[in-house]
Amino acid sequence: MKRLNTQVAIVGAGPGGLLLSHLLQRSGVDSIVLERRSREYVEKRVRAGLLEGGTVDFLREAGLADRLEREGLVHEGFVFRFGSRAHRMPFTELTGRTVHMYGQQELVKDLIRARTAAGARLWFDVPDAEPLGLDTDTPTVRCTVAGEPVEIGCDFVAGCDGFHGVSRRSVPPGTFSTYERTYPYAWLGVLAEAPPAAEELIYAVHSRGFALHSMRSPSVSRLYLQVEAGERVENWPDERIWKELHTRLDIDGAPELAEGPILEKSCVALRGFVTEPMSYGRLFLAGDAAHIVPPTAAKGLNLAVADIKVLATAFGEFYASGDRTALDGYSAACLPGVWQAQEFSDWMSGLLHRPPEGRVFDGRLQDARLQSVVNSPAAARRFAENYVGLARERTPAPGGRP
Amino acid sequence: MKRLNTQVAIVGAGPGGLLLSHLLQRSGVDSIVLERRSREYVEKRVRAGLLEGGTVDFLREAGLADRLEREGLVHEGFVFRFGSRAHRMPFTELTGRTVHMYGQQELVKDLIRARTAAGARLWFDVPDAEPLGLDTDTPTVRCTVAGEPVEIGCDFVAGCDGFHGVSRRSVPPGTFSTYERTYPYAWLGVLAEAPPAAEELIYAVHSRGFALHSMRSPSVSRLYLQVEAGERVENWPDERIWKELHTRLDIDGAPELAEGPILEKSCVALRGFVTEPMSYGRLFLAGDAAHIVPPTAAKGLNLAVADIKVLATAFGEFYASGDRTALDGYSAACLPGVWQAQEFSDWMSGLLHRPPEGRVFDGRLQDARLQSVVNSPAAARRFAENYVGLARERTPAPGGRP
Repeated sequence: MKRLNTQVAIVGAGPGGLLLSHLLQRSGVDSIVLERRSREYVEKRVRAGLLEGGTVDFLREAGLADRLEREGLVHEGFVFRFGSRAHRMPFTELTGRTVHMYGQQELVKDLIRARTAAGARLWFDVPDAEPLGLDTDTPTVRCTVAGEPVEIGCDFVAGCDGFHGVSRRSVPPGTFSTYERTYPYAWLGVLAEAPPAAEELIYAVHSRGFALHSMRSPSVSRLYLQVEAGERVENWPDERIWKELHTRLDIDGAPELAEGPILEKSCVALRGFVTEPMSYGRLFLAGDAAHIVPPTAAKGLNLAVADIKVLATAFGEFYASGDRTALDGYSAACLPGVWQAQEFSDWMSGLLHRPPEGRVFDGRLQDARLQSVVNSPAAARRFAENYVGLARERTPAPGGRP
Repeated sequence: MKRLNTQVAIVGAGPGGLLLSHLLQRSGVDSIVLERRSREYVEKRVRAGLLEGGTVDFLREAGLADRLEREGLVHEGFVFRFGSRAHRMPFTELTGRTVHMYGQQELVKDLIRARTAAGARLWFDVPDAEPLGLDTDTPTVRCTVAGEPVEIGCDFVAGCDGFHGVSRRSVPPGTFSTYERTYPYAWLGVLAEAPPAAEELIYAVHSRGFALHSMRSPSVSRLYLQVEAGERVENWPDERIWKELHTRLDIDGAPELAEGPILEKSCVALRGFVTEPMSYGRLFLAGDAAHIVPPTAAKGLNLAVADIKVLATAFGEFYASGDRTALDGYSAACLPGVWQAQEFSDWMSGLLHRPPEGRVFDGRLQDARLQSVVNSPAAARRFAENYVGLARERTPAPGGRP
């Protein structure tokens, strides 16, 4: 078996793993990134597309925001639609922060390009990475690279391999406490070659269910429909999707939704999930490997970047001074923000989705919540602070590091 | 059968019915108030004790606040306790509004005295009031007064007889839609002859359950413990109550809870309930007869006063001009505020109570919510606006009247 060495072995080449590798290099720390899928696959994987202002700032400081700033769409507000009326939420006016619309796979492309240009060891099509010896000072990752078995010796393993990844499952049973919530509805998401019907996102609350009008570019729309939990995409031919989108999104006096070829469609369950702590021995979990939020508030990618920011800094401190304090405080530093995002995502999900059949009391509370968000300046400000990510930054990390 | 006439027959001599009778007299409208219980009983019935600033203002304008302003305790903030720390919520600083602590039964005494002094027809011990002909122009209320059967002819019936009262049940089946939520916990409330441990209310979130430190006067404490739903007061001897209160309420560096004779104790279920609409023909429901909120945010009495304010004005307009518009809009004018209060009470209940066994995800969301209320000025402001009643006043009544 071939034996290699690095300082940090990174499992997963999603935005978290790639960003970590980039930041480590800037601190003079060596890493190897192992990705189960092909480069083509991860570059085309459609995910979220909303970057908080703080996320954009951080990517800019890391020298990774050139194309994002050139092509990303800057938003300063969005629109709620309910009761046949539109209510704008001017979040930039309320918080001073903007958000960028920029597909996650575009960011992944930028990161891969940057890593490749820097000569990084970034290996795709590695199906079987297996972290070992995580409770020792000399962990390894065994895997198969280009058909050849390889053992990577390292100081640390960063598990950036998503909810279904191997990293979280590489620890002894009972190591982590996990917290989970499933929601009684799902999202059907489509990517369509059609100009967006409006420049801003539209969150539509309709008696038939929630719908979201979003976009990836001036010619590509990203549209979502609330569907039953467990719904299958096969039940949704394009014609049915467009009909349902029109029903829920079109209102009098607003431009009608434009149709176009549907490039991708998929159903996603709404789930909340958190692992505590987010580390074990020399393994550190980040992003979806450690926590999942329902997509409603588009926090997933932003949380991953927030984790990596803390983790990269902690690795930097360790390698600069040998001090493990920041690494030991990683979990405590991240979890308060993770739970803030979880709480807001849960609340926003309840705000927008039609409650399950028969839960009429919930339906009335939902109406009251929508009214409060549009009628109370303080409620609107609180909403906006959460939406742009500012609320999370204000959450202290007791016992951890900022 | 003896036959009497009035303009508005009021069923129930709680704060709502008594206040309505008082306000009608000021508009020159005649009423009779029928109460199932004795005067002594209603004057001693321990209920909520927090009056929002708007409620106090309204009672003052109605000439009913002399003793309330002399003896009531004016509060400008309260204290959250969680994680062994105290966090003050300065709601007056945040909203400009104060609240008064003044037992509901004290207000009832004041109202009965005022009605009696004015020579009102206010009859206690009337066990069997029965509203009839509510869909005609000539409704009646049949009842037994001092052993004698009486039929009261009237223009309208005001149902102010609480959740268990006869009024809401006097309409044809299917007339009302009802919305209900039960909570998986209850409150054990005690009234104790003991000086409050602090001048302000303390809402304590503890791993054993929520506890509330409140008061009725400088020498009488009102204390609550979260208990299991369906818990019986017999299981709680005084000694157990004090022990549990100390455990949940005492923290280092704060004065210990003072003990004293327990004057009253009872268990109350937490329930949300709303009737839509709040009227039928010539019957108008107000207060608990139409809606119940969990006691967490102390909104029940304040909502009853808000209903009566709208109803008395509407009756005044009808008798001044014959115009029924305001009466017809009664329900639409009240319900948005009712649902705002319901929503806040639900949210505040979730914020403070220990979730049922096993709901660990909820427990973590609760922690995140508590953090957000103490760390975000916007979240604190929104909380304060709801707590003092300002948020409800800002809720428009679409289709109804302000």
